[in-house]
Amino acid sequence: MTRELLTGIGQLVTNDPADPAATGVDRLGLVADAAVLIEEGRVAWVGNASAAPAAARAAEVVTDLGGATVIPGFVDSHSHLVFAGDRSAEFEARMSGTPYTAGGIRSTVAATRAASDSELLARLRGFIRELHRQGTTTVEIKSGYGLSVHDEERLVALAASVTDEVTFLGAHVVPTDYAADPDAYVDLVTGPMLDACAPHARWIDVFCETGAFTVEQSRRILEAGAVRGLGLRVHASQLGPGEGVQLAVSLGAASVDHCTYLTDADIAALAGSSTVTTLLPGVEFSTRQPYPDARRLIDAGVTVAIACDCNPGSSFTSSMPFCIAVAVRDMGMTPAEALWSATAGGAAALRRSDIGRVAVGARADLAALAAPSYVHLAYRPGVPLVSATWKDGVRVA
Amino acid sequence: MTRELLTGIGQLVTNDPADPAATGVDRLGLVADAAVLIEEGRVAWVGNASAAPAAARAAEVVTDLGGATVIPGFVDSHSHLVFAGDRSAEFEARMSGTPYTAGGIRSTVAATRAASDSELLARLRGFIRELHRQGTTTVEIKSGYGLSVHDEERLVALAASVTDEVTFLGAHVVPTDYAADPDAYVDLVTGPMLDACAPHARWIDVFCETGAFTVEQSRRILEAGAVRGLGLRVHASQLGPGEGVQLAVSLGAASVDHCTYLTDADIAALAGSSTVTTLLPGVEFSTRQPYPDARRLIDAGVTVAIACDCNPGSSFTSSMPFCIAVAVRDMGMTPAEALWSATAGGAAALRRSDIGRVAVGARADLAALAAPSYVHLAYRPGVPLVSATWKDGVRVA
Ligand SMILES: [Zn+2]
Ligand SMILES: [Zn+2]
Repeated sequence: MTRELLTGIGQLVTNDPADPAATGVDRLGLVADAAVLIEEGRVAWVGNASAAPAAARAAEVVTDLGGATVIPGFVDSHSHLVFAGDRSAEFEARMSGTPYTAGGIRSTVAATRAASDSELLARLRGFIRELHRQGTTTVEIKSGYGLSVHDEERLVALAASVTDEVTFLGAHVVPTDYAADPDAYVDLVTGPMLDACAPHARWIDVFCETGAFTVEQSRRILEAGAVRGLGLRVHASQLGPGEGVQLAVSLGAASVDHCTYLTDADIAALAGSSTVTTLLPGVEFSTRQPYPDARRLIDAGVTVAIACDCNPGSSFTSSMPFCIAVAVRDMGMTPAEALWSATAGGAAALRRSDIGRVAVGARADLAALAAPSYVHLAYRPGVPLVSATWKDGVRVA
Repeated sequence: MTRELLTGIGQLVTNDPADPAATGVDRLGLVADAAVLIEEGRVAWVGNASAAPAAARAAEVVTDLGGATVIPGFVDSHSHLVFAGDRSAEFEARMSGTPYTAGGIRSTVAATRAASDSELLARLRGFIRELHRQGTTTVEIKSGYGLSVHDEERLVALAASVTDEVTFLGAHVVPTDYAADPDAYVDLVTGPMLDACAPHARWIDVFCETGAFTVEQSRRILEAGAVRGLGLRVHASQLGPGEGVQLAVSLGAASVDHCTYLTDADIAALAGSSTVTTLLPGVEFSTRQPYPDARRLIDAGVTVAIACDCNPGSSFTSSMPFCIAVAVRDMGMTPAEALWSATAGGAAALRRSDIGRVAVGARADLAALAAPSYVHLAYRPGVPLVSATWKDGVRVA
C-alpha cells in the first residue's frame, strides 16, 4: 500500500465545513497551507500541513505543489459525449445569422448510427482525456443519439466503459420514423429499449419540453425506468416554462436540468425537495438564449449544480471553469457558490457523497490550480489554470 | 540552416487570401491538407501538401500534425502585464455585490512600486509561458503601474526584456500625490518620464476618459510621444462616449482601444482612417458592462482587432480563444471575423506585416489546434484547444 502526501497546498477547498449549515464562501471549508494524505485511492487525512499526523509524515511519496490551490475534482453531472459527426458549420451559421438546414439532433443521430463502436470509443476516450486536463474527475454521460434499440444499447454500453454514471436517454427526441406516432416511440423506449439499456445504466432521463416529450409521456418513461431500478433525471424548462420541473420533484428525481424558465411555484417545489437544479451555462452561452437566474434559486434555498451539457448541438464546451465564469458573470452566482455547484453540487445531483469534497474517506479526486485562490477560476476566464488532476488518487493529467 | 516541414495540417488559416478585398471567411485564406515550410524562423513555403516543392520535401525535420488546424499565432495587442499584488478579493466582492474599498489601480501601483525587479520579471515570464500555451506569439505590454519616473522606467525596461511591443503608459491614471494638480503630472509624463521611458518603448498610450485624462491633456501626451518617435495608442470610450476616438484618428494613432461607446461620427471617422479599433471582450465580461457592437463597426468598414487587456483590475484573462468566443456570442462577430481580428487585426493594430498571417516571408509564428476547424475556437468556449505553439519557428509550447 503506497501512501502519497500532497503538500505545499496554498489554499485547499474541502467543501467540508465545520458547520454543515454554512453558506457562501464558508461552505467551501477552506484550509490554508494544507496537506492531503492519499491511501488506496481515498483521502486518509486532510488538514493544515503543520498538523500532519505520523502516518502522513511517513508517506512513501511526498508531492510538493508549490503553493497551488487544490479543489475537489469537478463533477460534471450532464453530458452527451457518445456521438459522431461534426456540427461546427451549423454553429457557425447560427452565430453568423445565415440559414442552415442540414443540422439538428437528427444529423448527429445519423452520423452516430453510421459510426463503428471503435470510432465512438476513440472519441469518447479523447473527451475523457480532455476532461481530466480540465480538472473534471466524474462525468455523467447520456445516450440519446441512437434512438433505436440496437443503437441506444451500443451507446450506453460504450458510455459504461468510461464512466460509472451512465444515463439512458432514449427519450432525447422522437426519431423521424415515429413522427406520426410519438406514443409508439414511447412504447419502444419503455419496452424493448429499456430492457436492452437498463443493465448498462444507472439513470434514466427524458427531454420534457414542447417539441420533445409531453409531461404524460415523460411520466410514463420515468416511471418505467424507476421500476427497473434506475434513478431519475429530467431535462425541463429550457425553452419556456412547463410542467417538467414539478414532475421531476413529484417523482423524486435526483436532478432536473436546464431550468432556464421557472415559475415561483417551480422554485417553491424545488426548495422543498431532494431534487437538485442543474444549470447549464454553456447552453445559454452557445445559443444566445437568456441565462437562468441562479441567485433567485439559491436565495430560495434550492440546491444548485452546474454542468457543461457537452454536446455538439447546443453547448460543445467541456470546461467546468468556463461554466463557473459564466455562472458568476451572468447567472448571479458568487465565485464560491459557482465552485461549490461545480463540485459538491454535481455530486448531489448524482446522489454521491464519495466525491465533490476532500474529506477522510472520500475518493481522492482532486485538481490543482496554478493560482493563489479558487476565485481565479472566475477571475481568469478561459485561462487553463488546472495544472494537475488526480482520480482515485492516481494522477491522470 | 535547418528546415522544418509541418505537415498533416487538416485546415490552415493563412489570413492571406488570393483576393485582398475578401471578407468574412474568405479573408482567412483557408488551405485544406496543408503544409508549411519553416526556414530561419520564417515561412519559406505554404500550400497544399501535395504541391510541396523539392525544398520542402528535403526538409531536415518533418512534423506531422495529424490533421490539426493551424492558425497564425494570436497577436494580443493590449496588455498590462508588469504588475505585482493580487486583486482577486476585489473581483470576488464586485461579482458578489459586496462592498470593497481597498482595491483599484492605485493598490496595484503600491504593490508594483514595492516589488523588486526580479519579482516583476518572474511573474512576467510566467505570463509569457501562459500566453504561449494559449497560442499567443506576440503581446504588447504597457507600463502604467509605476507612475513615477523611476518606476515607469523600470516597467518599460522589464517589459522590453520579454517583448518588442512595449508601450509607455505613464498616463494610466493621475497618481494620488498629483490629484490636486493633474496638469503638473502631465508635465512630468511629457517631460522627465518620457525622457526616461522613450528609449525602451515603441508606443505611447493615454487613458482618455472622464476621471483619467482630458482630451487636451491626452493630445499633449500623444504629441510629446510622437516627437520622440513613439507610435500612438489611445484608451477611449470605455465608460461612455468621449472625444478620445476622434483625437486618436486625427493624430493617426495605430489603434484606439475599448470603444464600447461610439457615436455615428466616431464610426465614420474610424472607417475613413488608418486607426484600428481594438475591442476588449474580457473587460465587459469581467465588469458586467454592456458589450461594444462589433457588427456595426465591421459593417461600416472599420478594421477591428480583439485583445485581452490582461490586467488585474478589469480583465484578468490572457486567453485569446476566450475573447474570440465572447466576441462571437456577445459582440456580433462571426467566428471567422473574430479569428481574423485576434490575429491579423492585432497585427494591424501594431502596424506589423510580418505577423498575423502565414505567408512566405512572414515570421513562423503559429498555433496548432486539437480541432478539425478554426470554428471550434468559438464553438468550444473555455476548452484549451491549443496543442502546440511556434514563435519564430521555434516550438515554445
Ligand atoms: Zn442535455
Ligand atoms: Zn488597458
